[in-house]
Amino acid sequence: MAKSQGILTNMGVDYVIVFRFATTDRPKAEQRFENLIQALAGVGLATEVRNGDNHSLLVFVKVASEEHIFGEVYRSRVKDWMYGVRAAAPSKEVRQSLDGEPMNESERLRIIHQLITNPASEGGAGITPKKGQWENVESVFALHDHVYNKAWIKKWSTQYLLTPEDLDEIRNRLGEKVAYYFAFTQAYFTFLTAPAAFGLGAWALLGSFSPFYAIFASIWCVVFVEYWKHQETDLAVRWNVRGVSKIDTKRHDFAHEKVVTDPVTGEEEHIFPATKRLQRQLLQVPFALVAALLLGALISTAFGIEIFISEIYNGPFKSVLVFLPTVILTTCMPILSGALTTLATRLSDYENHSTNAAHEKAVTQKIFVINFITSYLPIFLTAFVYVPFGTVLVPYLDVFSLTVRPFAENEKQLKTPTSAKFSINPSRLRKQVIYFTVTAQIVGFAMEVVVPYLKRQGFLKYREMQSSRAHAASAGGAPPPASLTDEPEEKDFLARVRSEAELDIYDVTTDLREMVLQFGYLALFSVVWPLVPVSFLINNWIELRADAVKICVEMQRPTPSRADTIGPWLDSLGFLSWVGSITMSALVYLFSNDGLGPDGNPSQIKGWALLLSVFFSEHLYLVVRWAVALAISKIDSPGRQKERRERFAVRQQYFKESLDQTSRLPPISEKAEDLNFTREKLEEDARQSSLSGSSTEQRFWSRQRSAGEVAVVGKGMIERALPASSEGKKEL
Amino acid sequence: MAKSQGILTNMGVDYVIVFRFATTDRPKAEQRFENLIQALAGVGLATEVRNGDNHSLLVFVKVASEEHIFGEVYRSRVKDWMYGVRAAAPSKEVRQSLDGEPMNESERLRIIHQLITNPASEGGAGITPKKGQWENVESVFALHDHVYNKAWIKKWSTQYLLTPEDLDEIRNRLGEKVAYYFAFTQAYFTFLTAPAAFGLGAWALLGSFSPFYAIFASIWCVVFVEYWKHQETDLAVRWNVRGVSKIDTKRHDFAHEKVVTDPVTGEEEHIFPATKRLQRQLLQVPFALVAALLLGALISTAFGIEIFISEIYNGPFKSVLVFLPTVILTTCMPILSGALTTLATRLSDYENHSTNAAHEKAVTQKIFVINFITSYLPIFLTAFVYVPFGTVLVPYLDVFSLTVRPFAENEKQLKTPTSAKFSINPSRLRKQVIYFTVTAQIVGFAMEVVVPYLKRQGFLKYREMQSSRAHAASAGGAPPPASLTDEPEEKDFLARVRSEAELDIYDVTTDLREMVLQFGYLALFSVVWPLVPVSFLINNWIELRADAVKICVEMQRPTPSRADTIGPWLDSLGFLSWVGSITMSALVYLFSNDGLGPDGNPSQIKGWALLLSVFFSEHLYLVVRWAVALAISKIDSPGRQKERRERFAVRQQYFKESLDQTSRLPPISEKAEDLNFTREKLEEDARQSSLSGSSTEQRFWSRQRSAGEVAVVGKGMIERALPASSEGKKEL
Repeated sequence: MAKSQGILTNMGVDYVIVFRFATTDRPKAEQRFENLIQALAGVGLATEVRNGDNHSLLVFVKVASEEHIFGEVYRSRVKDWMYGVRAAAPSKEVRQSLDGEPMNESERLRIIHQLITNPASEGGAGITPKKGQWENVESVFALHDHVYNKAWIKKWSTQYLLTPEDLDEIRNRLGEKVAYYFAFTQAYFTFLTAPAAFGLGAWALLGSFSPFYAIFASIWCVVFVEYWKHQETDLAVRWNVRGVSKIDTKRHDFAHEKVVTDPVTGEEEHIFPATKRLQRQLLQVPFALVAALLLGALISTAFGIEIFISEIYNGPFKSVLVFLPTVILTTCMPILSGALTTLATRLSDYENHSTNAAHEKAVTQKIFVINFITSYLPIFLTAFVYVPFGTVLVPYLDVFSLTVRPFAENEKQLKTPTSAKFSINPSRLRKQVIYFTVTAQIVGFAMEVVVPYLKRQGFLKYREMQSSRAHAASAGGAPPPASLTDEPEEKDFLARVRSEAELDIYDVTTDLREMVLQFGYLALFSVVWPLVPVSFLINNWIELRADAVKICVEMQRPTPSRADTIGPWLDSLGFLSWVGSITMSALVYLFSNDGLGPDGNPSQIKGWALLLSVFFSEHLYLVVRWAVALAISKIDSPGRQKERRERFAVRQQYFKESLDQTSRLPPISEKAEDLNFTREKLEEDARQSSLSGSSTEQRFWSRQRSAGEVAVVGKGMIERALPASSEGKKEL
Repeated sequence: MAKSQGILTNMGVDYVIVFRFATTDRPKAEQRFENLIQALAGVGLATEVRNGDNHSLLVFVKVASEEHIFGEVYRSRVKDWMYGVRAAAPSKEVRQSLDGEPMNESERLRIIHQLITNPASEGGAGITPKKGQWENVESVFALHDHVYNKAWIKKWSTQYLLTPEDLDEIRNRLGEKVAYYFAFTQAYFTFLTAPAAFGLGAWALLGSFSPFYAIFASIWCVVFVEYWKHQETDLAVRWNVRGVSKIDTKRHDFAHEKVVTDPVTGEEEHIFPATKRLQRQLLQVPFALVAALLLGALISTAFGIEIFISEIYNGPFKSVLVFLPTVILTTCMPILSGALTTLATRLSDYENHSTNAAHEKAVTQKIFVINFITSYLPIFLTAFVYVPFGTVLVPYLDVFSLTVRPFAENEKQLKTPTSAKFSINPSRLRKQVIYFTVTAQIVGFAMEVVVPYLKRQGFLKYREMQSSRAHAASAGGAPPPASLTDEPEEKDFLARVRSEAELDIYDVTTDLREMVLQFGYLALFSVVWPLVPVSFLINNWIELRADAVKICVEMQRPTPSRADTIGPWLDSLGFLSWVGSITMSALVYLFSNDGLGPDGNPSQIKGWALLLSVFFSEHLYLVVRWAVALAISKIDSPGRQKERRERFAVRQQYFKESLDQTSRLPPISEKAEDLNFTREKLEEDARQSSLSGSSTEQRFWSRQRSAGEVAVVGKGMIERALPASSEGKKEL
């Protein structure tokens, strides 16, 4: 009962701040702690403090008064409206506005998080964990809602499809950014059914490298990417976040170079020259080259060794040596790509972007380059180097034989294959694709579950060591466990908070990246083995649920943040489907006869025919993309309608308000009916007035004094030009 | 004196409406005339009527009161602001708003034109010239300002470059749409100096088909197109028309299929199903094919005949027969392309677009297809059919010899060339490019001046015939010339109006099309003869001035209309520079050895090498375009700054207005300094309160009652975890 109580209640806590002081000396730690509490109090947040594990304190934060948070939410909504994020203007009364559209949990948590972390100039407490004077602030996190989480997992695991309301729920709980990931994966999963069905049919009836499957898959990619763009906008409107990426939040680490007066706002602005940044961004080119070179060299070496051992080498230890490339890859690859990722982050830091969005985009782009190479290069090598040029290149692989010479028992085992003897292994490509799209997915999935657990255990150990060292330095003997001083009724709750404090922080981009890379295999290589989409369909059903579990169990509750797109990954999707149009056609041409060229011999592959099919396919892709984008843009959607409706309402109101004073003039028309003057008289009048008028212009306009007069005079002219007789004649 | 007076004054006339009744019977004409005057009076327009030439009346229109037009201008500005076209909200006072930003002439004329032509539901008189009940209304046009025009022409003809102020002048006089044409041509002209200089150098030093020139020209195209996109936005902001194309004006000819209640506005809306329109739009595909087939067949036939006669045929009449293809083209081409243009317009009508902008776009796209074929196909045929396949194809041309056999004196004159004898003429391509980029430009220029004149004369004759027939039907004898009844002091003025009434209507898209097609030659083929940009540079200096003269002298004053872009032509520019990246590289590869392939023989051209260079070049183009667009997007500009400044001002004001009530809470902080309690006491307090609190949650939050207490308790916890000795040790 007590235990379940600890899980059931969050004690009304909005955020927990972990203050760790194991490596700080006491007066400093005390001073910093006091600063922290003062800063929080300064922005209207109430606090409580409890002991944490291993030389840390847990500071519990909640909003001091609900009025205060209402005010903040209202400010945020008005700001959104001013920036065009919301189409409907919030009601002028705070209460009324919040009654009309109640604040949801993620909005509340987001605003409180902003209160804690925003700089003082933007009305926050300016607490930046692990940085500068806030070095001791280890983390700021919200508590899981375990009751809800349990219901959530249960619901999802018994449901085949997620409904838009499920996504709304995620948005209300975890914020738009996480919700976008689930929305994307769900859309991708739903769309996968089509190529999965077609792929199953193609696998059974058409076999691999079917041009029909390739065309279907390419068009599917285009439709999916374009549909998602459309859907993204729709969700943004639904969630009131459209254009939210335009509201820049300054990066903490941004270092300005000069202070100028902004010509727009007249305020002082910290800037970093764009040209200088552009110069620094040019470093991306050598970075991409270096990444390609290093990773390429590693992968090619492993690849070469693998071919040499499996297809040429025939000496001793072969059964052991076949694992050599795998060993090389699994040891060197993570190190290398880790180093490159660090380099990418450093490079992005060096580019010194002024907003978080720009920084994140820069990092993502560079990481995509690394991932592109590590994920797809092995298959590229097999498809476009090994198969077409294998007979030419493989003989050169005997450089490796020098290395294994000591093991060889006789020269025969090191036979250098001649092109006559060596023949390429046509099933290699298929095996490789199956490996990447099935085995690697399963392995990756397992890693996602296991690695965070190990990491957590490691950290825990590290903390304990740190803490006991601090203790050893002080008095000797282990510190009393934090739970010793707990009130009995808080015991379970605090135990839970302490364990949540140890959890990892959820990074949604990792999951998104995984999905995008998966999409890449489909777009680039699925023609090799049409069951790829089937595998992904199954994988993603599980993935969606596993990610939900991961967020609930393995990670701290993510701090809600807003987004109106999946960000730079969208460009990656477009890029992958473009490249797919090239690779698919090339694969179909190269392998439509099991990789042996149209005449059964790889050397018979015609360069011009290959290039022509690529050229044709790529341009077809571009035309189809254009047409699909056009067609999809015509589709209306509830979100778009909502937005238009709101904008219309705003406009209508403003028209009313500001145009009341300029109501239209009453029409200036004496009806021409009241004609008690004759035409002759009028014309005489006109002649008369010409004498008395003061200027030519005045006289010109006073010849006919009203619309009625104009009508009469004009009719007179018509009559004179078409005398009555003409009418008679016509009627004859 | 009197004559110059007639030219100097416009009598304060805003618009002239020509009412022609030559073919209408009298009662009907009279009724319609009266309706016209009534409709005009109904929207606050004053009128005067005078005799026109050949059974027509001239109705002079001006605004009845200046207050009225101020109100209309203000309404229009408020509407613009609501739709986001203007960033700055117009002042709430009409007078104040118009004093702050005085109405210019084009704004005035545009608004009055809207009053005359807009449907009654939008507050206009609903007069649609030549349509329905307004059949007799022949035209609605404003009068030229001859004093200004004379000064304008004089200024331009002595000025090397046009300044932004010159463009502002055009915008103020003739409206944004015409101003955009001049701005575009001016930007294009200025940009041309670079390739002209480089081309001159390349021509002198590198010769034709230089890859350096090709790369330079391609990059130049990209930079120009991207720069123009940037510039276009800037001008739109400068002229307060940004996003004006989003304000749809309904097409008069739009035929709705059903009436639905708009889910957005709740109003009834006339719609035509988008799917049905999409189906109809699919007809564009057969249209493009038919156009390509017909025009292609015509051009190829002429091309074949030309080659046969000039390079194979050797019989009698050769000197005459060489003109045969020219005769065929100059007679059949205008007929065929005229018919296709009519078809394009019909097709666009059939697509039944609901807005004028969409309709115009549809027409422009189709016309671009026709123009693309007629302009570039001849050169394509020479470059990519005649040269590479000439030796194979030319022998088949002896089909033509059957036609000329009767003229032949002996069989020798009809010798069928074998590939050994026949050799392609490498200078043909260059001659052709020179023809299209120099000769054709000059001819086109002459046509622009001569054709409208002839057309005008022809129409005049037609009118006279029509009129005298009407007269003959009525009484016999010529009608009295209209000028007979003129007041002496109005005589010159009316004579001028009568002649302006006969002028053509200026269509800016024709001129724009000319520029875009010219750009196409540069982007696609200029590598053949690097002097192409030099020719265009000279041509365009004259063109800009000639167009100004044309508008002033040969055309009716254009009715000002707004635009924020050069429209679909922008897409055409992008498309042309894309295709250019393909043709340029192909031309360089094919002809870098004077069209004889790398080994001096056309048959030695390698298909894969050609395709590879095209593939490479095209992707290089795409990358460069992306990079250039990115770099240009970073450039700030006065227009963008202006827009941001205005938006900022609006936001700032609104923040002030709507956030006064929610001023921030005063920080809830009793300073921790006033600590007259000890830690022990506090902790005891906490323990006590735990007993009295009602719920766990309340008790949790009441253990420490203020920020000060939290600070003290926390420090106590730190002290206990890090006893004083630790500090001492660390300092050792």
